[in-house]
Amino acid sequence: MKTQYAIGVDLGGTNIKCGIVTEKGKIVKKVSVKTKADKGPDVVISQIKKGVAKLLEGEKRKIQGIGLGAPGIVKHKKGIVENPPNLPGWGKVELGRILEKEFGLSIFLENDANAAAIGEMIFGAGEKIRSFIFVTLGTGVGGGIIQKKKLIRGDSGAAGEIGHISIDYKGRKCNCGSYGCIEAYIGNAYLVDRAKRSLRYHPESKLNEIIAENDGYLSPRLINEAAKLKDEFAINFIKESGKLLGYALASAVNVLDIPSIIIGGGTAGFGALLFESVQSAARERVLKSLKEKINVIPAQLKNDAGIKGASALVFYNLRKKSK
Amino acid sequence: MKTQYAIGVDLGGTNIKCGIVTEKGKIVKKVSVKTKADKGPDVVISQIKKGVAKLLEGEKRKIQGIGLGAPGIVKHKKGIVENPPNLPGWGKVELGRILEKEFGLSIFLENDANAAAIGEMIFGAGEKIRSFIFVTLGTGVGGGIIQKKKLIRGDSGAAGEIGHISIDYKGRKCNCGSYGCIEAYIGNAYLVDRAKRSLRYHPESKLNEIIAENDGYLSPRLINEAAKLKDEFAINFIKESGKLLGYALASAVNVLDIPSIIIGGGTAGFGALLFESVQSAARERVLKSLKEKINVIPAQLKNDAGIKGASALVFYNLRKKSK
Repeated sequence: MKTQYAIGVDLGGTNIKCGIVTEKGKIVKKVSVKTKADKGPDVVISQIKKGVAKLLEGEKRKIQGIGLGAPGIVKHKKGIVENPPNLPGWGKVELGRILEKEFGLSIFLENDANAAAIGEMIFGAGEKIRSFIFVTLGTGVGGGIIQKKKLIRGDSGAAGEIGHISIDYKGRKCNCGSYGCIEAYIGNAYLVDRAKRSLRYHPESKLNEIIAENDGYLSPRLINEAAKLKDEFAINFIKESGKLLGYALASAVNVLDIPSIIIGGGTAGFGALLFESVQSAARERVLKSLKEKINVIPAQLKNDAGIKGASALVFYNLRKKSK
Repeated sequence: MKTQYAIGVDLGGTNIKCGIVTEKGKIVKKVSVKTKADKGPDVVISQIKKGVAKLLEGEKRKIQGIGLGAPGIVKHKKGIVENPPNLPGWGKVELGRILEKEFGLSIFLENDANAAAIGEMIFGAGEKIRSFIFVTLGTGVGGGIIQKKKLIRGDSGAAGEIGHISIDYKGRKCNCGSYGCIEAYIGNAYLVDRAKRSLRYHPESKLNEIIAENDGYLSPRLINEAAKLKDEFAINFIKESGKLLGYALASAVNVLDIPSIIIGGGTAGFGALLFESVQSAARERVLKSLKEKINVIPAQLKNDAGIKGASALVFYNLRKKSK
């Protein structure tokens, strides 16, 4: 079969990353433009157009369509992006229609976590798995559910909010207004906050020095570095965080009966330490018939996962159509 | 259209209830036989055959098939019932094949909570709702998920275990081995146990007398009676139980984006008190975009819900085929 190409656009709060991607998930061309989020939707839209236009400049390959992943609520059928959290002043923007008019190509929009889940299904760790729960660990804890090779969207396209499974109804207050959401334990800011609080009781940890060297700054990456230096506090902290995620996932697995779990995003860089504790905690807590089936694996799309996931939307939708 | 008929078999631990049901959910004939669970699978199987044979005796109406709801794990495609919790010594029984051979009719098996969910979709409160979460409150807390008019089965047919969403990872130990499962708060025995413990601090509650009159026995029904007598403890206890269920459901709704919830089973007899607190707690805890959509309503199939749900399996599968 002739190689097929699609454009993927990763609409972030700081940068808009665009790429031409093959149906095997290889990026053959890439550009990045500033989002200019503070300038409002009109400027951001023209930045998106600029990015895609740059990609298409002198391009001879046939492009099958444009996929775009955006934060927040995306009405994929109507092509509407609603109030993305990092893009102030948006309201509802008919991005699908706007881009289709501009480029004359088919446009596929999706929430960024859902796009990443589809990316793993089409090009990544989920290629050979019929159903899986995808979790992305970063500023927030996002997710997407693939069931029998299809994305579960739910009634309004908001399904897969793994980050807002509560593990403790009397627990930590979450940004969303609820309590005990797993995001309120392991979303980046919460994770760092938890670590800093616990460190008060662990003056022996190397992390204290690391924080001092960084003028009070701490990040998941720095915690990971300490763990690699065999800092016991950092190691236990990562294990504990994995355990909490495993508990949240156990509830999701009991509801969905989907025991395959793919984890991506920055915090997934915690590596085997994290993955093993997620897996053993989930096994410990799910129903008996599911225990042995629990399988927690890392996402495969790492660099440019956003572009690849967005481009995967095109291949995903084309395959559905051709069936 | 000519009236269609199906047989529904509700395989319980004590009784096997069988009925001929119309496609509108009306039972036109009904028999009940003892399960004789302690005598092992062979005797139970012959009891099922006896019940169905009694129904078919002299029957002139054309029967479209037999649906059967069984507790525990049911492999619906293979027609296998696996280790039902109340039927000792079963292992795996190919009930589908056995009944098909005996009666020459199409057989459809399903876990009893899933059958009840399908019953609500075909005949009940879910008739006009495209997607809903069904919860049944009784000895256990069971559930079934209907998404776009289809039952979600998951990888191994075990999906919908709403009762094993944990609301507190450090919470009450559940029979399943996990902690904080909502079943460990509001499953019948747990519910009664929680009420009895709290009553120590509420000597003013009428429930204390009720328990004394019943030789130490307490049940959800008795708690409900006390609430109807305006016993403050009983009222608050029911509200609190509803709140906990609402919290568990909030996690499920965030994952599934299915904000319509149908609640059935004995404890649903707590009525408006329960439903209102489930709904307000779920609204309080779900993501903002879902709050207003949360809608908690009672199941419609009450008496003989088991027979009706089981018969609905036949109509559900026939409709799918005819599409």
